[in-house]
Amino acid sequence: MACAFCAIAAAGSEAQIVFEDELTLGFLDNRPLFEGHTLLIPRAHHEAIWDLPDELVGPSFANVRALSVAVRDAMGASGAFVALNNIVSQSVPHLHAHVVPRRPKDGLRGFFWPRTKYSSDERAAEVADLIRAESERRPK
Amino acid sequence: MACAFCAIAAAGSEAQIVFEDELTLGFLDNRPLFEGHTLLIPRAHHEAIWDLPDELVGPSFANVRALSVAVRDAMGASGAFVALNNIVSQSVPHLHAHVVPRRPKDGLRGFFWPRTKYSSDERAAEVADLIRAESERRPK
Repeated sequence: MACAFCAIAAAGSEAQIVFEDELTLGFLDNRPLFEGHTLLIPRAHHEAIWDLPDELVGPSFANVRALSVAVRDAMGASGAFVALNNIVSQSVPHLHAHVVPRRPKDGLRGFFWPRTKYSSDERAAEVADLIRAESERRPK
Repeated sequence: MACAFCAIAAAGSEAQIVFEDELTLGFLDNRPLFEGHTLLIPRAHHEAIWDLPDELVGPSFANVRALSVAVRDAMGASGAFVALNNIVSQSVPHLHAHVVPRRPKDGLRGFFWPRTKYSSDERAAEVADLIRAESERRPK
């Protein structure tokens, strides 16, 4: 199969499965940030979060929530990082949520990237207007 | 109020609101990774993803999905990064999903952290067993 995660979903490819139900599948990332780093995917091929149909949103993220607890407790961690790369930095074009166990002083930072500031309050208001307008002009 | 995000939800604190409905609120992160970096919170105070009640999971993540599109398009970006820090690296103890516009070669990497490998297939299988057991022993 062309899609590596469709191949896992079809059991045509090896993976360390940690969770499965009718709609989703959880398995170990084979290049983990830490041991226990898990991916949850919809079985059906959807590329990015905006492609996920309405009926999969609730079940998929309820399973992300459940996996966050399972990964945290199984690995004796105190926190969990949940992340989805959509299009940019997305290594496999099949939607996947990363669930990563976190511990204080584990060497990662929640944001690892330089955070900036808006040049002015006016600029922040302009940006907010742009997003609000996009948000309002389309149905959810 | 003690919680900075409860204060925003109660409109007792200034924020650049970009989206709101009965259950959730979206506003600009005031220390953005990039302009347009938005946070979506449940109006009610829940600390981490595992504290989010069943009835809020679907609506909250449907709104994260909608905001991902709005942020992407408003900022002329091609992708979106969605992330939740739970407990570790969580700066405000009120659940918030980051929605960050992404562009190719924007200087960030989806993972910014050194990725490792399992020491052996056996170790990966052991870790998967631990998570599977945690996942199975509790109700979703």
